[in-house]
Amino acid sequence: MTGKVYLVGAGPGDPGLLTLRGAELLGRAQTVVYDQLAAPELLSLAPPGCRLVDAGKKAGDHALSQAAINELLAQEALAGRTVIRLKGGDPYIFGRGGEEALYLAERGLEFETIPGVSSAIAAAAAAGVPLTHRGLSQLAILATGHAQNGRDGVDFASLPDGTVAVVMGRANLKSICQGLIKSGRPPQTPAAAVERGATARQKTVVGTLADLPLLADRARLAPPTLLVAGAVVSLRDRLGWFEKRPLFGRTVLVTRARAQAGRLSAIFRELGARVIEAPAIAVRPIEPNPELDQALEDLTGSRLFGYLVLTSPNGAEIFLKALFKGPGDARALFGLKIVAIGPGTAAALTPFGLKADGLPKVYQAEGL
Amino acid sequence: MTGKVYLVGAGPGDPGLLTLRGAELLGRAQTVVYDQLAAPELLSLAPPGCRLVDAGKKAGDHALSQAAINELLAQEALAGRTVIRLKGGDPYIFGRGGEEALYLAERGLEFETIPGVSSAIAAAAAAGVPLTHRGLSQLAILATGHAQNGRDGVDFASLPDGTVAVVMGRANLKSICQGLIKSGRPPQTPAAAVERGATARQKTVVGTLADLPLLADRARLAPPTLLVAGAVVSLRDRLGWFEKRPLFGRTVLVTRARAQAGRLSAIFRELGARVIEAPAIAVRPIEPNPELDQALEDLTGSRLFGYLVLTSPNGAEIFLKALFKGPGDARALFGLKIVAIGPGTAAALTPFGLKADGLPKVYQAEGL
Repeated sequence: MTGKVYLVGAGPGDPGLLTLRGAELLGRAQTVVYDQLAAPELLSLAPPGCRLVDAGKKAGDHALSQAAINELLAQEALAGRTVIRLKGGDPYIFGRGGEEALYLAERGLEFETIPGVSSAIAAAAAAGVPLTHRGLSQLAILATGHAQNGRDGVDFASLPDGTVAVVMGRANLKSICQGLIKSGRPPQTPAAAVERGATARQKTVVGTLADLPLLADRARLAPPTLLVAGAVVSLRDRLGWFEKRPLFGRTVLVTRARAQAGRLSAIFRELGARVIEAPAIAVRPIEPNPELDQALEDLTGSRLFGYLVLTSPNGAEIFLKALFKGPGDARALFGLKIVAIGPGTAAALTPFGLKADGLPKVYQAEGL
Repeated sequence: MTGKVYLVGAGPGDPGLLTLRGAELLGRAQTVVYDQLAAPELLSLAPPGCRLVDAGKKAGDHALSQAAINELLAQEALAGRTVIRLKGGDPYIFGRGGEEALYLAERGLEFETIPGVSSAIAAAAAAGVPLTHRGLSQLAILATGHAQNGRDGVDFASLPDGTVAVVMGRANLKSICQGLIKSGRPPQTPAAAVERGATARQKTVVGTLADLPLLADRARLAPPTLLVAGAVVSLRDRLGWFEKRPLFGRTVLVTRARAQAGRLSAIFRELGARVIEAPAIAVRPIEPNPELDQALEDLTGSRLFGYLVLTSPNGAEIFLKALFKGPGDARALFGLKIVAIGPGTAAALTPFGLKADGLPKVYQAEGL
């Protein structure tokens, strides 16, 4: 049977801005073809064994040509696979998603598109700029800065009043600002350039159409950068909560074991930090473990033991998983008093149908 | 302590298009203030006891004035609550989210904005129209059809070449199309009007700038409607997978008990149907249930019984929850053979740390 291709918008780079539907599809992907602009953390949502292909479409550096990407998607679908084409932002806003969908449609292959949070809208918002605002602008013009000279190139000097948001705006920033001034906008029109918008590495430079190009050079702003120009930029001082968070601009290294890192990382991210998970320890079951197997047998078959003392969540989980791998279940621990060292360990018992009969007063093994 | 307001974009109406971050925040909301344009299914993500306020901002029928909404958000935050302001589409694209955020900012109240999938982009995509497409348009102009005569009204006759997407485009459809023709676009420019875009009730009318208003009248198109005009509309024939799904346009009533309905509903939604969940049965524990309590006591305290036969997933869940409500856990069922009638019932045992010791060959009570 032929497979299907899902063109999924990954949003602007913050993994929390993926859609529920996108997450669900990633969770059952057999192949993921992704862009540099899609958040790398999203790939961890794909199941083990999923084929991951980096289409590497950095600006100006196409690792795979568009034709090669189209053909890859078609071949994977023809091989019967569930293919997720993960694209930064929304697939139909300067994402070339339409070209990929057309290629599949013309070959009679099944596809779906799942819209995403547009990077242009989200990056401006994270910089404190709503693209539309009553009394300031009821028009949001989305353009790309990379198409100035093509046959469908954008003539910035022709754009009417209203907010202008230009993705991939870094390379041609100067000529775009000049074009907007030629359109009749005052040189003093507020304008901002936002690098890696809506991510923890966001960097914003604010000025006017006249001086923004120079300010962006001085700040060494790099792609991907959004240019946003218009009266709405003046709202940034009051609406720019994103960059005011206490840990914004900081990088936090979380060294906990991977399984335990998530909750801590989420707290740091909420406070604005960029989080890098670099587990310094890993907790793994010993396999095979004949001593554990023997202990389990002794524990369940006889009355040799009176207490089962579990000293950590990891230990509890590994022990109980080993028990459940055999034919037995929680009933096998009948007659034992279960002691958990601390509430974290006690909570680890719940998925196995068990409750701690006792906790020591001090949450250390010595507290027993 | 003062609370915090989260301005969350709910996306275009399909609950799957909410962001992961939006879902997480809804899950810990204490107050949700929502619009008509936000998907009603999303409210089920709010926890029990959460205050739900319908701000009722249907087009032209403001149940709560904007000033009243602003004040409500501030008061709820001052009362120390976690407030989710759930807005259709993206909060900063014609959503008046900027006004609400400003009101809070000026009072020193904490807020965050969480972008959403823009209704304009998603509704066009669901109608098979990418707003940008190489060779056809590198410009997407987003406008609202409700601001034609205000002081920041849109002059459609001034818009340069490129795709135009107008939300709330129904009431002024004729004058907007006429304006776009005055802008220099040929009257034969492809144009589409999409009612309730990106939802199972989507209705699309396709024509040209010249004849679309008449065609929309004939089809009795109602708000909310997106107007999209430009060469990209011609891609609809090939990219319009959404309306071609086998159950698109059908409404399916799912009468299963609410807890069991979700999986079935998801299958119908995937096929394009509009799903209404109207549980014809509800399964509830009997409370208080002294007979069950007595049976549990007999079961765990003595050797009166040899078998525990569980005949349905609901029965198994209610029975085991009652057992775990007391001080005991799965160990209490030691010495009993557990028989589950069918694999669904057997699977219901897993969260309680139990495995079925046996299943009958025929999955009916008579199969024992």
